[in-house]
Amino acid sequence: MQTIILLFQCEDQKGIVAKVSDFIFKHEGNIVTADQYSTDPEGGHFFLRIEFFIDETQHHKASLEAAFRPVAASFKAEWHMYYKREKLRMGIFVSKPDHCLVDFLYLWKSGELAVDIPFVVSTVPDHKAIVELHTIPFHHIAATKDDRKEAELLALASGQSDFLVFARYMLIMSKKFLRAYGKDIINIHHSFLPSFKGVDPYRQAFERGVKVIGATAHFVTETLDEGPIMSQMVESVSHKDSVEDLMRKGKNLEKRALAQAVHSYIDHRIIKYKNKTIVF
Amino acid sequence: MQTIILLFQCEDQKGIVAKVSDFIFKHEGNIVTADQYSTDPEGGHFFLRIEFFIDETQHHKASLEAAFRPVAASFKAEWHMYYKREKLRMGIFVSKPDHCLVDFLYLWKSGELAVDIPFVVSTVPDHKAIVELHTIPFHHIAATKDDRKEAELLALASGQSDFLVFARYMLIMSKKFLRAYGKDIINIHHSFLPSFKGVDPYRQAFERGVKVIGATAHFVTETLDEGPIMSQMVESVSHKDSVEDLMRKGKNLEKRALAQAVHSYIDHRIIKYKNKTIVF
Amino acid sequence: MQTIILLFQCEDQKGIVAKVSDFIFKHEGNIVTADQYSTDPEGGHFFLRIEFFIDETQHHKASLEAAFRPVAASFKAEWHMYYKREKLRMGIFVSKPDHCLVDFLYLWKSGELAVDIPFVVSTVPDHKAIVELHTIPFHHIAATKDDRKEAELLALASGQSDFLVFARYMLIMSKKFLRAYGKDIINIHHSFLPSFKGVDPYRQAFERGVKVIGATAHFVTETLDEGPIMSQMVESVSHKDSVEDLMRKGKNLEKRALAQAVHSYIDHRIIKYKNKTIVF
Amino acid sequence: MQTIILLFQCEDQKGIVAKVSDFIFKHEGNIVTADQYSTDPEGGHFFLRIEFFIDETQHHKASLEAAFRPVAASFKAEWHMYYKREKLRMGIFVSKPDHCLVDFLYLWKSGELAVDIPFVVSTVPDHKAIVELHTIPFHHIAATKDDRKEAELLALASGQSDFLVFARYMLIMSKKFLRAYGKDIINIHHSFLPSFKGVDPYRQAFERGVKVIGATAHFVTETLDEGPIMSQMVESVSHKDSVEDLMRKGKNLEKRALAQAVHSYIDHRIIKYKNKTIVF
Repeated sequence: MQTIILLFQCEDQKGIVAKVSDFIFKHEGNIVTADQYSTDPEGGHFFLRIEFFIDETQHHKASLEAAFRPVAASFKAEWHMYYKREKLRMGIFVSKPDHCLVDFLYLWKSGELAVDIPFVVSTVPDHKAIVELHTIPFHHIAATKDDRKEAELLALASGQSDFLVFARYMLIMSKKFLRAYGKDIINIHHSFLPSFKGVDPYRQAFERGVKVIGATAHFVTETLDEGPIMSQMVESVSHKDSVEDLMRKGKNLEKRALAQAVHSYIDHRIIKYKNKTIVF
Repeated sequence: MQTIILLFQCEDQKGIVAKVSDFIFKHEGNIVTADQYSTDPEGGHFFLRIEFFIDETQHHKASLEAAFRPVAASFKAEWHMYYKREKLRMGIFVSKPDHCLVDFLYLWKSGELAVDIPFVVSTVPDHKAIVELHTIPFHHIAATKDDRKEAELLALASGQSDFLVFARYMLIMSKKFLRAYGKDIINIHHSFLPSFKGVDPYRQAFERGVKVIGATAHFVTETLDEGPIMSQMVESVSHKDSVEDLMRKGKNLEKRALAQAVHSYIDHRIIKYKNKTIVF
Repeated sequence: MQTIILLFQCEDQKGIVAKVSDFIFKHEGNIVTADQYSTDPEGGHFFLRIEFFIDETQHHKASLEAAFRPVAASFKAEWHMYYKREKLRMGIFVSKPDHCLVDFLYLWKSGELAVDIPFVVSTVPDHKAIVELHTIPFHHIAATKDDRKEAELLALASGQSDFLVFARYMLIMSKKFLRAYGKDIINIHHSFLPSFKGVDPYRQAFERGVKVIGATAHFVTETLDEGPIMSQMVESVSHKDSVEDLMRKGKNLEKRALAQAVHSYIDHRIIKYKNKTIVF
Repeated sequence: MQTIILLFQCEDQKGIVAKVSDFIFKHEGNIVTADQYSTDPEGGHFFLRIEFFIDETQHHKASLEAAFRPVAASFKAEWHMYYKREKLRMGIFVSKPDHCLVDFLYLWKSGELAVDIPFVVSTVPDHKAIVELHTIPFHHIAATKDDRKEAELLALASGQSDFLVFARYMLIMSKKFLRAYGKDIINIHHSFLPSFKGVDPYRQAFERGVKVIGATAHFVTETLDEGPIMSQMVESVSHKDSVEDLMRKGKNLEKRALAQAVHSYIDHRIIKYKNKTIVF
């Protein structure tokens, strides 16, 4: 038995769930979970995620996909099927702050994060020991603001990763890099977006005197800190908290927001739509 | 166009979603939301809630139900269809503390709580003015621990309500009352169940020195404070909080937990199963 | 026995707590709570709030103040003493949305909000019945964007209130009004400031696709939505939430953030400092 | 300049803060933060924590203590002075689950947890590599339910630790061990106490169908899971969460509740009083 995840989107219309679930039934699949969303039930855009298991010896994914093609075509749908067992390859970019990195290493080692990690690359050499303890290749590429070493990074990332996580990576990558990489990149921004974009958000939050701080995981787009938001975490603060206190509290938020976003992403629960996300 | 909510449960088996959604499609319905849950996809109990809209001039609920009967029977399912527009009649029982009552009156008046309120009954006369300001009948039935006046309460409640809310009703009703009423009763208990059952839970919480307090909305059963939990709300407290502070903070939790439970209930989102709830 | 609250601020220096507490001790006062904060213990600005009780028959506030004057002067401090029993007079301005108003009326009636409410004034007549049920004078002043009727409002507010609460008051008052009123005004903004200033913040939040919404209580200043933040409340949202859902969820946040701010304010727990607040 | 923390408790009476702060002033100390609490301002028990800095070349702690003794004696107070720079030695006991351990190692390495960690001891050898990577001695003592190897553990712990943390240590230590060790032991219990004491609390929570789970850090006493509560963390769950989901979500709560308790403890912010805690 294999679990397959179907992501499916098209213009909303009658009969989608009926046809799709009938297809699964006819192939002797059993639906485990199904989630749907329509931007407007009377003529909006429709999104569907179905997780079902199926006897692989009878129905291989390739043949299933072939059989599903005409069904999807009848709705003019975009769709994709994933084997749940097939792990995505997640490349990690990290600067000096290592709290998100250490969290990922722990989650990965304990079996909670079902990805392969082909590499960790950092602007600093500091994380070598902890990364290699987990038998993950570590690369030190001393990129700086003035020399972002994008070619080198691209050579590392493009072949061997399905998506990237900027787990507190302090350099802003060029449009050229983003287009050349071409796959999803998940970033953690250390503020409650859209408040406090750009540099030193905890100082900005301190100056404004907010009573709650946040962290935001989002897809990287060509406009800084403007990509679709995947998850946000918040925590109360007070006048007693210095900028350093905000940074320390924020580390927890960053870890949790980023881990939550990545978990949803690798489970194929996140769909980008315009500049927003559907998170099933 | 009318929105219908279908609740459906049976033993888990293949093809349920396919058959049910096909039925809706064939009657030209459009699924707005669908939620499903199985206690175990390989042979557990299966629950389904589908909200769909349909042209009532073509397919009246009665004829729809008749047509659906054989579909459901083929799965040996229990099921029910509700018109979303049909409001449930919610009777309110309340003792002296009025925070939940006032909240309900506000929600109802502002159109956020889609119920009819046929009556509010209280052990004290205090709430008469505010209830009647909302043009809702108010009854003062001076029940006490020693004379719970259950016959009188039953006469009031049984005919004209679809369910009851004990919005801080301090008397424990007898099994006889519960059986005679026979419909759902929602209670708010002012602790984080299963901690601190019974009387004076805030004092119990204070004595134990907990750092978080809670409130629990649950279905009333014949065993005190043991019914299926519908919603729980929590808030941090500290050594500085006196019993009175806990009570004051708790009022907010009680209001919010109870309102959330009632909202889910009247939307037909809550299914009791054994001693637990599925809340879609 | 009377409880007195002392608020005190000056440049940080040695011996402040010693001198002030010695003063209280010598007048046979007993400190109930004391809170202090310094922006920088080595030469910042120092804030102190002490709540103490004292035998009023021996030491009346006026004589206590006279005796304290030289102590405070030795530190070049600003300070104020308040009797806890003396209630502030809180004027309420409200437009059509009444959730904050109804919450205040309930808190006031139940004894949880220790203020006098000399009046409620609204741009609409709708709230007359509920306000008058609480025996509070209600004024309908049909102010609009084009005619804010500030003179009329000022005539109402200035004499008989110690501070104002804009409990969802939709008109922006002129600098002239703010200066003429001259006392504190507390506003609730229906977003997580500094995100989404100005009009229709829930729509702005919806468009941006945030996963957490908020509400912010702040002091009104001459720059819109830029005043010192008093309290903020947040709640998770998802792609499923429409703008209307955000508004509904936000009502709860607004009530709670505003009530918390007002509670702190009337307890003399909030000190404005530059564009921020210390909330003891 | 050195920062000293004074913890002080006695029967509540007039003049305590005055005398104590005057003492600090006379020794040219500057109070950074002061917190006080009384179980009842009219005759309860009084607790004080003052953090102040002082010129150590003028006033060494030993001489300061000698000078303070008569002041404290005049109030019949219990008290203690700590140098902030002096790190406590925290011994870690851990069974197989390593999420709290890994979190502590990270916090310690990053400088956020100002303790020395003289050893980590585990019933299993699994954690050796990660502990030793942090240059902390690791001991594998294969204690079991039937042979808890308390003598060996005591020999390890008693000399070289100031307190112990049971960072998910699955064995229940005997009264004999607790008495022989004689210092504080902090435990993390994986439920929202007092709910679900004893074994397998997540299963208990699952069976009861709660909608919020929790974790509780508390001092170990001779009665299982009954010691003074230091901190509690909670998170929402739903019918969809299996026992395994609760365990996974709970790991985050356990880490955070335990880290918070330890942070407060090593800052000398926690005072045990009867079976409760004051957490300044």
